[in-house]
Amino acid sequence: MDLHGFLNAERQRIDATLDRLLPAADAWPARLHDAMRYAVFGEGKRVRPVLLRAACRAAGGDPEKVVEAACALELVHTYSLIHDDLPALDNDTLRRGRPTVHVAYDEPLAILAGDALLTEAFAVLGAFPAGEAFAGRRAEACRLVAVAIGSRGMVGGQAEDLEATGGLPDAERLDRIHRAKTGALIGAAVELGALLAGVDGPHRGVFAGFGERLGLLFQVADDILDVTGSAATLGKSPGKDAAAGKLTYPAVYGLDAANRELEALTGSLMREAEGLEGSGGTLGAMVSYVARRNR
Amino acid sequence: MDLHGFLNAERQRIDATLDRLLPAADAWPARLHDAMRYAVFGEGKRVRPVLLRAACRAAGGDPEKVVEAACALELVHTYSLIHDDLPALDNDTLRRGRPTVHVAYDEPLAILAGDALLTEAFAVLGAFPAGEAFAGRRAEACRLVAVAIGSRGMVGGQAEDLEATGGLPDAERLDRIHRAKTGALIGAAVELGALLAGVDGPHRGVFAGFGERLGLLFQVADDILDVTGSAATLGKSPGKDAAAGKLTYPAVYGLDAANRELEALTGSLMREAEGLEGSGGTLGAMVSYVARRNR
Repeated sequence: MDLHGFLNAERQRIDATLDRLLPAADAWPARLHDAMRYAVFGEGKRVRPVLLRAACRAAGGDPEKVVEAACALELVHTYSLIHDDLPALDNDTLRRGRPTVHVAYDEPLAILAGDALLTEAFAVLGAFPAGEAFAGRRAEACRLVAVAIGSRGMVGGQAEDLEATGGLPDAERLDRIHRAKTGALIGAAVELGALLAGVDGPHRGVFAGFGERLGLLFQVADDILDVTGSAATLGKSPGKDAAAGKLTYPAVYGLDAANRELEALTGSLMREAEGLEGSGGTLGAMVSYVARRNR
Repeated sequence: MDLHGFLNAERQRIDATLDRLLPAADAWPARLHDAMRYAVFGEGKRVRPVLLRAACRAAGGDPEKVVEAACALELVHTYSLIHDDLPALDNDTLRRGRPTVHVAYDEPLAILAGDALLTEAFAVLGAFPAGEAFAGRRAEACRLVAVAIGSRGMVGGQAEDLEATGGLPDAERLDRIHRAKTGALIGAAVELGALLAGVDGPHRGVFAGFGERLGLLFQVADDILDVTGSAATLGKSPGKDAAAGKLTYPAVYGLDAANRELEALTGSLMREAEGLEGSGGTLGAMVSYVARRNR
């Protein structure tokens, strides 16, 4: 598989759909819509939407039918970045290679743009895929995503991350933060792709478990990148987590052990992906993409 | 109708349901859940949930089936208060008679608690009313609420309110802010009650229109209260809007004209309510409750 070509085609499809779903930059209220678009159309890799479509494909569904739902997860991801970057939280000024929203606009607008993007995600999930046949899956999609990104998921992980910052290395706490903060949304992307393809019952759980472990891989790779990457490859400030005293994989286990964990997770996820979609599929390609970002 | 007794019974039912829906205050992550409950269980009047149930009743539905969905609107309302009160936005320290969340906890947790409450609302709307028969209505509920409270609705109104603050009185702008900032969620409460009762097509539009005008009444009454109320009756700092140079009804039209508008709106809404539910119904009672708050 030509991973580069595949990812480029996916990104173009997703970006065109995001452009269609979001209100025009000059639609009332223009400054808010402008900020929302500024945040969404940075150099995002669109990992979550691509994963959702890959999981849908692997589950025998039509990825064309789920492109809007896939975009909803990018709206969620973008909201979480805007709010995480706020002065009161991580106070980051660089994201996806550009000034963060509260720097490019202002803090009130950054708060509201994040709120609006999160909200818009549910407008999309409630409406797509259209048609009576999908009504039950749309409602379940809203529920599933909300649980994944709420107080017991992504937002909960962010809250614990704040509390843990500057504390002693704690493997159990690190695991809890990783599962919630990054793993939950990545896991939801995979599970939602399967759900929208019509998968239910235990087989949906298999996709969910694969997604959760892929989320862990993503976070381990991200933590390593924070230590070894540059601003150019990261699109954000490197060394930021370490400097802020964040609980990360390398901080708790050391860089060598983090790299070994990355290898082991990658191997087992590749086997899982093959079990789900056969060899040479797009889920497997995404595993190797997520793992290789730090090479 | 015994309005006082009715509202008390409704509030108890709604508060008990909110208590059941929200994670326990000591569930991980405890500080976040504690803050969410602190914000939700202030002295809220539960106007939006009561309205949703009243509209459901007026439309021939069973208000017992929609108590969770009604609570979802209270979660949305609470999130909007937490974020509006933030230092970067209205910088308010008193709400529902107690310190605001960023004062009682801290600013990062207030941002996250708001995010989590908004998210939880969609987890509830996606799951209730349970059962296959309601699946289509649940998905539509998520979409409807998201549109009402997103960038073209409630959050958009807040963004324009920020821009308008300190500017010249502008009737058109005031109308736009009121419709979006308060009217949209009140309108959604009424429309959602009808939708969940099974109303669709033009008759749903009648409920939506009634809700929108009721939202306007609510905001006019609120603006008047800001001028004439005390901290004890308001549960928040009075005179705050005027001091901040906010665009309000009394600021644009004067207090007398605002009071006349309140009377006129109340009269026409009472007639509309009677058309929807007959005389002596709960929608009518809510109209007089919303209007009378400032007497």
